[in-house]
Amino acid sequence: MADYVRPVIDVPALTALLDGVHVEVRTMVRENLTSHAEILDEAITMGRDEFRDRVLEVILEMAGSGASSLGFPEEYGGGADIGASIAAFETLAFGDLSVLVKSGVQFGLFGGALLHLGTRRHHETWLADAISGDLVGCFAMTETGHGSNVQALATTATYDGTAREFVLSTPDDSARKDYIGNAACHASTAVVFAQLVLEGRSEGVHAFVVPIRDGEGRLCPGVRIEDDGPKIGLNGVDNGRIWFDEVRVPRENLLDRYAQVTEDGVYRSSILNPDRRFFTMLGTLVQGRVSVGGAAINASKVALAVAVRYANRRRQFGAPGGTTDELLLDYGMHQRRLLPRLARTYGLHFAQEVLVAELHEVFSNPDAADERRRRALESRAAGTKALGTWHASDTVQECREACGGAGYLSANRLGALRADTDVFTTFEGDNHVLLQLVAKGLLTDYASEFEDLDQLGMVRFVAEVAVETVIERTAVHKLLERIRDVLPGGDDKWDQEAGVLDPEYQLAMFRWREEHMLAGVARRLKRGIDGGMEPTEVFSRCQPHVVGAARAHVDRLVLEAFTAKTAALPDGDNKVALNHLCDLYALSVIEDDRAWWMEHGRLSSQRSKEITRTIGQLCRKVRPLAADLVDAFAVPEELQRAEMLR
Amino acid sequence: MADYVRPVIDVPALTALLDGVHVEVRTMVRENLTSHAEILDEAITMGRDEFRDRVLEVILEMAGSGASSLGFPEEYGGGADIGASIAAFETLAFGDLSVLVKSGVQFGLFGGALLHLGTRRHHETWLADAISGDLVGCFAMTETGHGSNVQALATTATYDGTAREFVLSTPDDSARKDYIGNAACHASTAVVFAQLVLEGRSEGVHAFVVPIRDGEGRLCPGVRIEDDGPKIGLNGVDNGRIWFDEVRVPRENLLDRYAQVTEDGVYRSSILNPDRRFFTMLGTLVQGRVSVGGAAINASKVALAVAVRYANRRRQFGAPGGTTDELLLDYGMHQRRLLPRLARTYGLHFAQEVLVAELHEVFSNPDAADERRRRALESRAAGTKALGTWHASDTVQECREACGGAGYLSANRLGALRADTDVFTTFEGDNHVLLQLVAKGLLTDYASEFEDLDQLGMVRFVAEVAVETVIERTAVHKLLERIRDVLPGGDDKWDQEAGVLDPEYQLAMFRWREEHMLAGVARRLKRGIDGGMEPTEVFSRCQPHVVGAARAHVDRLVLEAFTAKTAALPDGDNKVALNHLCDLYALSVIEDDRAWWMEHGRLSSQRSKEITRTIGQLCRKVRPLAADLVDAFAVPEELQRAEMLR
Repeated sequence: MADYVRPVIDVPALTALLDGVHVEVRTMVRENLTSHAEILDEAITMGRDEFRDRVLEVILEMAGSGASSLGFPEEYGGGADIGASIAAFETLAFGDLSVLVKSGVQFGLFGGALLHLGTRRHHETWLADAISGDLVGCFAMTETGHGSNVQALATTATYDGTAREFVLSTPDDSARKDYIGNAACHASTAVVFAQLVLEGRSEGVHAFVVPIRDGEGRLCPGVRIEDDGPKIGLNGVDNGRIWFDEVRVPRENLLDRYAQVTEDGVYRSSILNPDRRFFTMLGTLVQGRVSVGGAAINASKVALAVAVRYANRRRQFGAPGGTTDELLLDYGMHQRRLLPRLARTYGLHFAQEVLVAELHEVFSNPDAADERRRRALESRAAGTKALGTWHASDTVQECREACGGAGYLSANRLGALRADTDVFTTFEGDNHVLLQLVAKGLLTDYASEFEDLDQLGMVRFVAEVAVETVIERTAVHKLLERIRDVLPGGDDKWDQEAGVLDPEYQLAMFRWREEHMLAGVARRLKRGIDGGMEPTEVFSRCQPHVVGAARAHVDRLVLEAFTAKTAALPDGDNKVALNHLCDLYALSVIEDDRAWWMEHGRLSSQRSKEITRTIGQLCRKVRPLAADLVDAFAVPEELQRAEMLR
Repeated sequence: MADYVRPVIDVPALTALLDGVHVEVRTMVRENLTSHAEILDEAITMGRDEFRDRVLEVILEMAGSGASSLGFPEEYGGGADIGASIAAFETLAFGDLSVLVKSGVQFGLFGGALLHLGTRRHHETWLADAISGDLVGCFAMTETGHGSNVQALATTATYDGTAREFVLSTPDDSARKDYIGNAACHASTAVVFAQLVLEGRSEGVHAFVVPIRDGEGRLCPGVRIEDDGPKIGLNGVDNGRIWFDEVRVPRENLLDRYAQVTEDGVYRSSILNPDRRFFTMLGTLVQGRVSVGGAAINASKVALAVAVRYANRRRQFGAPGGTTDELLLDYGMHQRRLLPRLARTYGLHFAQEVLVAELHEVFSNPDAADERRRRALESRAAGTKALGTWHASDTVQECREACGGAGYLSANRLGALRADTDVFTTFEGDNHVLLQLVAKGLLTDYASEFEDLDQLGMVRFVAEVAVETVIERTAVHKLLERIRDVLPGGDDKWDQEAGVLDPEYQLAMFRWREEHMLAGVARRLKRGIDGGMEPTEVFSRCQPHVVGAARAHVDRLVLEAFTAKTAALPDGDNKVALNHLCDLYALSVIEDDRAWWMEHGRLSSQRSKEITRTIGQLCRKVRPLAADLVDAFAVPEELQRAEMLR
């Protein structure tokens, strides 16, 4: 490091880079949040009921600024800018997360379901009120006994041709709607997902608009609601359970964009395959996952801002005879705990940016996007949500521990962040289930059969049909050829001759792992089926590999986004700093899974140790930049609420 | 597995094995807790002030049973059985953890300090009341600016020879006592750690008994207290901050077992070296660490009991055409998430049992234990506390996620467990700092210099004096010789020829890693110093290796305890089951760090993959035993408080 000149970060320029095209809306939301910063105290001092009402108040006030309606058509008061709407939501994560989640329930889930699953009639009746908050709603999908397996929902909506009404019923307690935000207190209307039953036969899960409370807040006849009670976090959101006992709604309350029922009870849909119809409906709700992933990444920024600043002023154990103790962040272990997580946060931010741009593209031009592109988008959203939310849990927790006892006090924000983000790994799709979805897409190459396949269908499809394709597509010799083109060395020693800081080397390592893992899963599935094992058993045994392959895929997407963003920067100190971070991200991922590459002959012991050493060096280079790197997140001072920093 | 006969677990016999010699006291505490099970609800429904008072009530009621006083001499109302007192405390972790922690503050820290640091005068004055709870106290050691570095505490106790009093002062806000349990509301008396100043010179940190509230609960003159406010968890404990402004206490209030001040202000101690004196005083408080580690392990048991039972009844995604969905625990991924953690919980339990027996031995026969043995005990306590508490954080979190949305509701116990145990990794010594202490002991071979050495002293000592000893002690050739004696193969191919289920193979792998890592740390320290690097810098860079070596050491202690316990069992199905668990523990540890063994030439790729495969097989063997294995923890049904299991 003798000739190394430490870069000087231009913080405003870096903030501008992070804020990207949606800088205006992000600035507006930062200002909204700062003007409501007292909610962070109220979250602690208020009782639950009072706090729930307060959160409702805040989201309705903020709706006035227009930030909540950006994703809706202009004719109903929206901003008609999907990308901006996600950016606004993500930025809410700098503030209290009950506000974020309640806002997501009202505008994202409830409003989004009306918009995407309904048609003009529904839009004209409800959308403007949903956007303004005059109509508070909830999104009643999950049931106590059916979480991730939405197709198995047991609530029924049976068509009564005489009355021309649907009759909603909860057959048993495992079919009660559960964890439904806004249900316990505030919602007057629910979008309810239920089996549409015609003449004793289910046509699959569909969505219905169901009034649940009258103008006075009294429950409608046949509706029973129970409060889910206190939770680990997010106690400003009133989650509840709903039972339906022969609740009648007009035929028109079916959200009928993808399927209709005529007055005389005939079912019609332009999508013939019921599985594909179901997944098409669900697919329109992809914004929820994109939003949660982005919020999780921003929550990580808040935690890192607090923990890095603390570590940069807290002194501990001094050099004997020295006048001062060392700063926490001068310790190698402390750097190891915080800085790779800081690097990954940047990487995930850029990956999320790519995802949001693609979402904007696909949803703004419905005709431009073919089915395959939509499926790839859904898969990318699922994967980014899973890795982003796990990253948040891990990072907030490490930051809490890195702040010691101070981090445990509610006066500092880390506890609330931890408690509130905890459920992010579970809601909008359990992360393990989402990664299986990602793997399914990769294994079937987003084939048109993709959506028809349940877990076991996927096992059979891959084992019987797709195995050759997967293996061919990911064949080692082809991969090595591609790598040969980009890396010096020119033979299969690429993994030993390129420098570990060479971005092409890093990408080649990530790609090789992803493709090799995928091929391995395909082979394993085939071997299991060929060996006569039950498909459930084959899947069960293969599941850790399935999840691993999907993770490797998302890691690669993150690295590609990070590398591309950095490469596109003009030369200068910010570029140097981001290159350090990008290297730190890439090598940390390799280090974490270095055993895998060693097992597969793509990493020598020497090289592996070199990577660990290089990470130490990178941490020492990033250490003096760390304060600026967290400042660039531009988390308003008022929202960091770190008493320990005062 | 064709010939494999699934063992049938004798649950009561396994419970008896786990409860060990302290079965009676564990049974009594289970009954105490069950009779106060309503506190688990009150923790959620009550406001903070009310709940704090309730927790005090409960610990005082339970003190009546004698369980809290087991560690004290009989003449003051105690049970004179240190091992039993730890067993009682550990078992409290099955119930509400505010009760556990408040009990620990009152009887462990406050009572323990009076007992171990005081002399007969102090015992006669305060001990009986402390034990009965008539005198509520606190343990005022940590300061806002000085957590892990206790020697640097800045509160002063200056001797005023004229008045024959000590005058306690808080020089600035960083010296305020912080996070002090019982301080915010309940304590009338504090044991305060402060620099003992005689004629302008500090003799180091000593403990003083300081009244802080009068009989009416009013603060004593010069004492200022601030509530630490709400926390992530443990809100039944009233933590607070204390400032002292010229607070006077009689000379006799110095707890003077290890050092005395005469009336005319002369300092006397039988331990001449001030560092050693300090660490001897601290060493008497080792029970706190042992207690916290044991409590963390038991908290993990509660979480696993809930999550395993849930996974054993919750169905998700069915085989097409099948009548039922699969149980969660039938999924390979779910097994991977829960079962290795179950195995580690058993391992830690047995390691804790060894630790408690040694503590009992050393403290019951003070003359029998030489200094070296005490230091080894302190080191073992530190290491077990660190790994036990990290394990609890990790396990409770994984259990929460494995229970999905249900796990997020306060009606189920996982949220409270997570929030309450979170600070265990921080209090009674930050885990990273504790592991450095463990490494210091290993590197200096618990030399008599051990306690004199601060961090940098340790760097110099190892680099200059001990490096040869460490390397010699851990020499690879000697280690291989020892291994050769026990393993078939007879040469240095032991790591490839023994079966992965051979306990000798597993132990050899653990030992080899530990000793190689230690030697590596010693070499790195020496290389840094020889290369002219600043000792602080040498330490900073080496720190991750220091922590890694300590972890490897504790892993080995756990495996030895687990293996020994299992080997000593009579043949039978319980032994078969525990052997599976022990294998699962050992191979999971190797798998987690397999990259390290590969990097160091002690694990081939083939072998590494075999270990991963074998873990899968072991999970499938343990899966049908899992329900019995958690039942054997005997966590009373009332305390599992899992609404989702009803």
